[in-house]
Amino acid sequence: MTPAFSAEKPTPTLLKRFKATVAYDGTDFEGWQSQTNKNTIQDILERRLAFILEKPTRIYGSGRTDSGVHARGQVFHFEGEWNHPPLYLQRAFASNVPDTIQVLSVEVVDSSFDARKSATGKRYIYYITEGCASPFDLRFCHSLGHVKLDVERMQAGALHLIGKHDFTAFSGTRPRHQDPNPIKELRKLTITRNGPKVEILTEGSGYMYKMVRSLAGALIDVGKGKLPPDELKAILESKVRTALVPTAPAKGLFLDHVFYD
Amino acid sequence: MTPAFSAEKPTPTLLKRFKATVAYDGTDFEGWQSQTNKNTIQDILERRLAFILEKPTRIYGSGRTDSGVHARGQVFHFEGEWNHPPLYLQRAFASNVPDTIQVLSVEVVDSSFDARKSATGKRYIYYITEGCASPFDLRFCHSLGHVKLDVERMQAGALHLIGKHDFTAFSGTRPRHQDPNPIKELRKLTITRNGPKVEILTEGSGYMYKMVRSLAGALIDVGKGKLPPDELKAILESKVRTALVPTAPAKGLFLDHVFYD
Repeated sequence: MTPAFSAEKPTPTLLKRFKATVAYDGTDFEGWQSQTNKNTIQDILERRLAFILEKPTRIYGSGRTDSGVHARGQVFHFEGEWNHPPLYLQRAFASNVPDTIQVLSVEVVDSSFDARKSATGKRYIYYITEGCASPFDLRFCHSLGHVKLDVERMQAGALHLIGKHDFTAFSGTRPRHQDPNPIKELRKLTITRNGPKVEILTEGSGYMYKMVRSLAGALIDVGKGKLPPDELKAILESKVRTALVPTAPAKGLFLDHVFYD
Repeated sequence: MTPAFSAEKPTPTLLKRFKATVAYDGTDFEGWQSQTNKNTIQDILERRLAFILEKPTRIYGSGRTDSGVHARGQVFHFEGEWNHPPLYLQRAFASNVPDTIQVLSVEVVDSSFDARKSATGKRYIYYITEGCASPFDLRFCHSLGHVKLDVERMQAGALHLIGKHDFTAFSGTRPRHQDPNPIKELRKLTITRNGPKVEILTEGSGYMYKMVRSLAGALIDVGKGKLPPDELKAILESKVRTALVPTAPAKGLFLDHVFYD
């Protein structure tokens, strides 16, 4: 109880590394990645974290998501001094953050953990609705109007894309987004129908910029009959992005899960 | 081809009666019922219909829904001169109406059909989430935070409410909403759990003002342990609305279906 006694038991304020999982409805945000004066998810979470930890704190995502893209399980890491249980840190994120962004979990991890570099893969799901999406999911799927999709054709086309390939023909073309390694492995690419709803699910080692939306755009054109399934093989092998591959709208895309060993 | 010939075959512009089904996300509207200078679903649909039919046209709903309440299958009728297939009328509703309001079907019905008077019952579903609703359904359910619900208690309480009763104790109290017939028949009242999500489903002959949200509010308090299940019987029999019965938030409520013979 004396000052001398207190000095013998200093509060253990060690820097810890945290892994956090976050879900968001991307509709109202300008993507994940921090930008000057922009309403991005990273910026919002960093502003909140600075308040919680009483210190400017950078967070590191598993990767960016584009403006309008959603996430069920985006992962980020950060370092900070926090001596309460991580659960309290997760709960602290719930205040003064739009309720369309929800930090689902926070845990202490080894200091070697890196949300991007430690990831072994990612699962994305792209949601499509024939006809009009209902008022209850129109923020979360791409509505095709009167068009019908031939899912078997799409599945036939997908077979050309599964595996390890140079995906340049299915990536964005802006120089600042050039990926030094265009070779990615798609472990899974499935198309499933449930009534008027069609889902494209992909799991892969990594993705180039706009790759999932480009794969979805091309597969939708195959499903509409605009592209023959085999054409996807020719496009892939061309290693050139052309107007043959449209980029499907952001609203249909979810970053579903990031895999770690 | 002569004027005389045309006069012998006048365009058959007979007044027809139409039944329409509409789904809406009620979040951004001030309820169903038309109000002066208000953003209600009825007003929006009537404005659009006046344009389509080139004539001011009143629509008649199966009943009102409160501000913030959603519908998967609200029904309304109206009369108009329309010589194209009803499908085109349904499609015409898709323009210049917010996409959170969607007319799902329009059909020609007998002139005796009345959306309210011909209804034999309605199904409502109230959605609750323990913890936080995900960013993808937070507009469509009532989030309880850290509270857990005892669904078996709620089911025991519901047994007292099923059947034909005077539901004054579970209705709104504003004099202008007084129902001349407080005797309603609840044919079904079920509570089901799916993980952290709890649904209260009710089918009944009719409902008083705010009755479903009052039933939900009382059942939630039973599930929380704040009210004993048997207390619902005493409240029902009192025929007096008191603060013992809270009104659950509008956002969790869906008018799911209107029944007709």
